[in-house]
Amino acid sequence: MPEVRTIGVLTSGGDAPGMNAAIRAVVRTGIYYGFRVMGIRRGYNGLIEGDIFEMNLRSVSDIIQRGGTILLTARSPEFMTENGLKKAASMCKIFKIDALVVIGGDGSFRGARDLSKFGINVVGIPGTIDNDIACTDYTIGFDTALNTVQDAINKIRDTATSHERVSILEVMGRHAGYIALYSGIAGGAESIVIPEKGLDKDEIIRRIIDGKNKGKLHNLIILAEGIGGATELAKEIEEATGIETRATILGYIQRGGSPTAYDRVVASLMGAKAVEVIKEGKQNRIIAMKDGKIVDYDIDEALSMQKTIDEYMYNLATILSL
Amino acid sequence: MPEVRTIGVLTSGGDAPGMNAAIRAVVRTGIYYGFRVMGIRRGYNGLIEGDIFEMNLRSVSDIIQRGGTILLTARSPEFMTENGLKKAASMCKIFKIDALVVIGGDGSFRGARDLSKFGINVVGIPGTIDNDIACTDYTIGFDTALNTVQDAINKIRDTATSHERVSILEVMGRHAGYIALYSGIAGGAESIVIPEKGLDKDEIIRRIIDGKNKGKLHNLIILAEGIGGATELAKEIEEATGIETRATILGYIQRGGSPTAYDRVVASLMGAKAVEVIKEGKQNRIIAMKDGKIVDYDIDEALSMQKTIDEYMYNLATILSL
Amino acid sequence: MPEVRTIGVLTSGGDAPGMNAAIRAVVRTGIYYGFRVMGIRRGYNGLIEGDIFEMNLRSVSDIIQRGGTILLTARSPEFMTENGLKKAASMCKIFKIDALVVIGGDGSFRGARDLSKFGINVVGIPGTIDNDIACTDYTIGFDTALNTVQDAINKIRDTATSHERVSILEVMGRHAGYIALYSGIAGGAESIVIPEKGLDKDEIIRRIIDGKNKGKLHNLIILAEGIGGATELAKEIEEATGIETRATILGYIQRGGSPTAYDRVVASLMGAKAVEVIKEGKQNRIIAMKDGKIVDYDIDEALSMQKTIDEYMYNLATILSL
Amino acid sequence: MPEVRTIGVLTSGGDAPGMNAAIRAVVRTGIYYGFRVMGIRRGYNGLIEGDIFEMNLRSVSDIIQRGGTILLTARSPEFMTENGLKKAASMCKIFKIDALVVIGGDGSFRGARDLSKFGINVVGIPGTIDNDIACTDYTIGFDTALNTVQDAINKIRDTATSHERVSILEVMGRHAGYIALYSGIAGGAESIVIPEKGLDKDEIIRRIIDGKNKGKLHNLIILAEGIGGATELAKEIEEATGIETRATILGYIQRGGSPTAYDRVVASLMGAKAVEVIKEGKQNRIIAMKDGKIVDYDIDEALSMQKTIDEYMYNLATILSL
Repeated sequence: MPEVRTIGVLTSGGDAPGMNAAIRAVVRTGIYYGFRVMGIRRGYNGLIEGDIFEMNLRSVSDIIQRGGTILLTARSPEFMTENGLKKAASMCKIFKIDALVVIGGDGSFRGARDLSKFGINVVGIPGTIDNDIACTDYTIGFDTALNTVQDAINKIRDTATSHERVSILEVMGRHAGYIALYSGIAGGAESIVIPEKGLDKDEIIRRIIDGKNKGKLHNLIILAEGIGGATELAKEIEEATGIETRATILGYIQRGGSPTAYDRVVASLMGAKAVEVIKEGKQNRIIAMKDGKIVDYDIDEALSMQKTIDEYMYNLATILSL
Repeated sequence: MPEVRTIGVLTSGGDAPGMNAAIRAVVRTGIYYGFRVMGIRRGYNGLIEGDIFEMNLRSVSDIIQRGGTILLTARSPEFMTENGLKKAASMCKIFKIDALVVIGGDGSFRGARDLSKFGINVVGIPGTIDNDIACTDYTIGFDTALNTVQDAINKIRDTATSHERVSILEVMGRHAGYIALYSGIAGGAESIVIPEKGLDKDEIIRRIIDGKNKGKLHNLIILAEGIGGATELAKEIEEATGIETRATILGYIQRGGSPTAYDRVVASLMGAKAVEVIKEGKQNRIIAMKDGKIVDYDIDEALSMQKTIDEYMYNLATILSL
Repeated sequence: MPEVRTIGVLTSGGDAPGMNAAIRAVVRTGIYYGFRVMGIRRGYNGLIEGDIFEMNLRSVSDIIQRGGTILLTARSPEFMTENGLKKAASMCKIFKIDALVVIGGDGSFRGARDLSKFGINVVGIPGTIDNDIACTDYTIGFDTALNTVQDAINKIRDTATSHERVSILEVMGRHAGYIALYSGIAGGAESIVIPEKGLDKDEIIRRIIDGKNKGKLHNLIILAEGIGGATELAKEIEEATGIETRATILGYIQRGGSPTAYDRVVASLMGAKAVEVIKEGKQNRIIAMKDGKIVDYDIDEALSMQKTIDEYMYNLATILSL
Repeated sequence: MPEVRTIGVLTSGGDAPGMNAAIRAVVRTGIYYGFRVMGIRRGYNGLIEGDIFEMNLRSVSDIIQRGGTILLTARSPEFMTENGLKKAASMCKIFKIDALVVIGGDGSFRGARDLSKFGINVVGIPGTIDNDIACTDYTIGFDTALNTVQDAINKIRDTATSHERVSILEVMGRHAGYIALYSGIAGGAESIVIPEKGLDKDEIIRRIIDGKNKGKLHNLIILAEGIGGATELAKEIEEATGIETRATILGYIQRGGSPTAYDRVVASLMGAKAVEVIKEGKQNRIIAMKDGKIVDYDIDEALSMQKTIDEYMYNLATILSL
């Protein structure tokens, strides 16, 4: 196999805090090991259109603390087509990009795998606030999102306690309840409703009445987006219990914010690992955290894995909010 | 007039960060000047029901930094009735409360004025995040709410810039656009839509296209709750411009949070002033900030004032976001 | 007098959060009113050396939320000399700068006044975290610094309460105790020690013993830099009371941080006012906040004013920490 | 072995954010599994003096978000003596405490081991911001401390960049450089100086000059307390390079603050694990995080382990700050 000389890097799909720290690590580690590093703007769209520029050590100065991604990101329906893939592969050849680092989620990795069939060495770094990628215990951005949700819980708790209300907070997670589960534990939520478990209204209402009887001034329900319907649920609870109930849908603020220390460190480690994997001559890998360590998997193997919610934590959440 | 010996204090209506700092100031200044201070829980409801307890210096320890109100708050439809007012006045007599400090908004002040007809000396302290009380340039909680909105803007800007999107952020303010106007200036919003001015969709869309042509990666619209319809507006903008547009309704997190330094200082000054006014033998006053100073107005005079949005600031916001 | 066509803007002396918001307002309001705006880097040093560049609307994009100053800042001993002033004035002529906006403190304003003798129209905007400029009730950066100190107090209180310790926090303010006084009130400090009042060790120790007797788990002393000696004071208190006492010198973190909403709004208003004053043909002014409004003073008049600490607030601080 | 019926819980040594979350988990999981739970105030001191009270589900309401420890903490020289240990063991018998959960650091665990010789079943939970306990990859409070340091770095970077200065930030860590190393990576520090590696002044100065030549506006050195001497080092650097250099000693604010989501979740898991270990009949264990999982070790085995700094991360830090 020919030696890799030039690494391309792009961010794809939804942005996540820490992506900039990962880009910085790819660029600086890459240059340190003698690679040329090319930045690609707007994800696969920019790859297709040739929105590509050479990066140097200073290109990534003063970005580790910033949310979002300096390379911008987008969804690219065109890339999903055979023609789009061909254009992208051709653009890699024109810019002499031998290896492509893709920072994003599952969908972006599937795109990368498809591109690899055209002879481009691809390496994926898991970046999404949802922590919903099967092969890795952690995805960049998850910790920052949890702390954003936690801040929102603190604020909602103040006002809900003062009014002795029930609060419902709808957080991100269309198919996966990780944000809801972890922020629910961190925020001391009385009920956590996630797609993996479904919604049991009677149980929620029972806990609200129970809590009131025990003297709780406030009852907090964390609801994952995949279940949804926070506003309607609030009405039903209010009718069933007679307790004022208010819903908040947290929305896009969960994607932003300066990354936490944890996200910056993990993103730095994963970015460096991506370059090391390329340097070692490995082909088509996904970087992952497994058992507290940064490892790499074959991309096909990684994409075939399944992820399940931690039953122990789900049950513990209930015990801790007694 | 008989000398005041006992001061009651309650919080009423929507809670606001800094209410605890005001309670603390009323209690400690009150005791310092030789008054007995009684806390009343759950606003006028607690007054009617006699949910009243004596407070000492330690009752308000370790609360200055907390959001919400340790005295709890509620709306009280019963208090709005002649019978409710009589019960409340009677309870004041039973607990020997000569003067009542009411921390809340316009509605709470009207309730206080009605109660004053029964011979209770009432003093209002403006506490609401909306800054919509006519007699005062500032209401406790406004600064904290602005900083909460500003944090949300920072986070939304990260992700919207990364995706080159238009963002709409709906903030509190049913009849008054102060939160929208000030947070819009602080957050560098391209458009600010407030009830006092109405919604001009064509102008907003023109600015979005203009901004895109000038190379702006992001366009932010701050929309006051009193205009509402953030989600629908997002769809219309997306159709008209072809630029992805996302709406966030910030909701109850705007009411919570540890109060800012400014809110703590102003709340402390206003709480102290309320006690001083009682000590001086004044009757039925509203504490206010006027021209940067803490003053007091007759309650009838205060309630008859009108407030208008600052035209200069509204126009400046447009110039600053060019 | 010839019409002003080109405005120069620089930041000078210690930086303060909100300086960027003021620069942004000068640039955008300036361009809106038809002026050319030139940025000058590194304060008066850059003026002398000709480190000057034309700014456009995009030069100040995405800076309102940043601490520090994008124009950089420095002290300039050379500018204090006759020769330095001549060079600076000559550079203004070379770059056709008719009016110069100087964002900084008292020392920077004195420099501006000296420069005005060479026929340059100067306008000062008060930017310093210390709030120690006589002509104005407020200086840009003060509110952000107060909130930074308040956050530090929160953190210190956690650990000091857990250990039942006395804490001393030394904050900035060489000649003026504003940061100490206001953050002391906001943070609920038991003692506030400021240059305007001096240090009374016996009184501090009396309050510590008093507080312990009243059941306080923690005692906080805020000490202004102008008094200093936090570490030594801690030792003396520990010896006198037998209570563990720890000192923290907060240092440079007080100068940084994303500006608060208040600092951004005030900086925006002051920056716009500076341009309006130039547009109106006024000469050599200082922008100030007086009685809650943005006004302007003659520079000589402004520099001859005196500022004193608010006795009422100083005494109130003691009552509130009972 | 007799069945455990009553669990005691105390915090000992320096406090750490997340200790309250651990206490809450011990109390609620304990009660859930049918144990009586006794709180002990002021660490081993309170155990010796019998400052012990029964806790119920509500004793730990509204504490998960608070820094410090509601059980207070202290060092106890008396406990280190044979007599102190006997008194403590006797008090356990009087209060029928069969198992004692100790939340603290290495020193606290050695105390617990000594107490176990008197027939008390002890379980340690690692709580210290320093992350310096050999048997565990993580100690409660470390993540919060890192984010506090990171915030300080952000603020210092603002002002140092504006003045083009070198900054030295001294952070906690007497024998271990974990806080310095991780916060240095997260904060993008140019040099990280830790006890495990020692101080190489020439290398630091070389990097400062190098950075200046490469156009860096700022150079940040993170220095662990165990090396110390920040103020002196600043003077030496200033003399050697001619670049203004400022030192900040961060101090006690590193111990405080509302715990991050990560610290709350880990503390919850460790607190629950401590109760589960007791429930399973295990004797004298230390709870730890190993390879991303919560495990338990024999206390003697745990105390005999050694911890070393991660060479890979130390080297990576240099590459990333190029």
